[in-house]
Amino acid sequence: MALSKPSAERLSRLAHLLEQRHDRHTPVSSTELERLTGWPSHTIRKDISALSLPETVSTTAGYDSHLLATAIRQSLGFGEETQNCCIVGLGRLGSAFLEYTGFTDSPFTLCAGFDSNVNRIEILKASVPLFPTFKMKEIIPRLAIRYAILCVPPEQAQNTALRLADCGVAGIVNFTPAIVRPIEGVEIEQVSIVDVLGGLAARLAAT
Amino acid sequence: MALSKPSAERLSRLAHLLEQRHDRHTPVSSTELERLTGWPSHTIRKDISALSLPETVSTTAGYDSHLLATAIRQSLGFGEETQNCCIVGLGRLGSAFLEYTGFTDSPFTLCAGFDSNVNRIEILKASVPLFPTFKMKEIIPRLAIRYAILCVPPEQAQNTALRLADCGVAGIVNFTPAIVRPIEGVEIEQVSIVDVLGGLAARLAAT
Repeated sequence: MALSKPSAERLSRLAHLLEQRHDRHTPVSSTELERLTGWPSHTIRKDISALSLPETVSTTAGYDSHLLATAIRQSLGFGEETQNCCIVGLGRLGSAFLEYTGFTDSPFTLCAGFDSNVNRIEILKASVPLFPTFKMKEIIPRLAIRYAILCVPPEQAQNTALRLADCGVAGIVNFTPAIVRPIEGVEIEQVSIVDVLGGLAARLAAT
Repeated sequence: MALSKPSAERLSRLAHLLEQRHDRHTPVSSTELERLTGWPSHTIRKDISALSLPETVSTTAGYDSHLLATAIRQSLGFGEETQNCCIVGLGRLGSAFLEYTGFTDSPFTLCAGFDSNVNRIEILKASVPLFPTFKMKEIIPRLAIRYAILCVPPEQAQNTALRLADCGVAGIVNFTPAIVRPIEGVEIEQVSIVDVLGGLAARLAAT
């Protein structure tokens, strides 16, 4: 299946949005999805139609929220099991993400935090276990961690990403302002406030 | 100019990357840009060629970093002046962003933080002035703030976004896990770790 990156991200967000709905089996129309997401309904319909979904997902009243979410997740390569992630670098940003509530009702589970400062690990309170960075090679395979959220100081970003790849991590979300160069066998996505602001500004200039 | 959103974001990130280079006038080839960004060089060339750039930007040895960055910024609607932003909601995530170093060498300047908790404002140390949320209507126009980074608790996201729109903010980066419904006249971009992880997972499944 060749989904474009924006399409995959929209579908992933859509599934997440549907998973958060309480009325799980109430039909939801593409117009309502437009209102909820802010994306044009024809974009949403196109994204969904690119997946090979079972016919039961769609009725004349709209999509079944729960079935659609499950079907999207399956099309995007998720089974029923959750995907484990960890946070690497527990400074202000990383430790803030330890408390991020957005993982609830998502297919991702935060299951560990790492920091090179052992004192910091002992002081921080967290609902997940925290480990010193030198234990990554042991802990990451043991906890079957596939994704890492990178929050180390920018000058350590590249080296830490290389170590994470070496530990078997498949995907890295880079929250540092440093660009991490491509690493064979690992998908890396940088999230930079400045670049998100730049994108917003460009869209504002175009309207 | 009708730039797609991914193209605008790539160009914005590219300009930011070029601005961070120390050798500002050394030519940079699209192959080198591919290595730095991880995007295919033909995508980069296509993005750049969609802009109407002065011929001096491109030589046989490559692009002039500084001229290219400036030309991209201008094409994306930036002049020489910086764009002011603020952080709204100074819990762990918002206060972590107060220390974000990525604004340096970017066209964006962080110039204020807001929180409804007056005690928190008094306790927090920050290099920018902090204000109680009820002063937004006065401070945002006075400091010519165009962008807000939304870090309030999720249940306050929609209302706070509406208030920001009312204060004249043009763009909002929503870091809360709550979806903010579209608001007339404001560009909103949600950044959700879970959706970024979902996009990564989808790309991994597709390869």
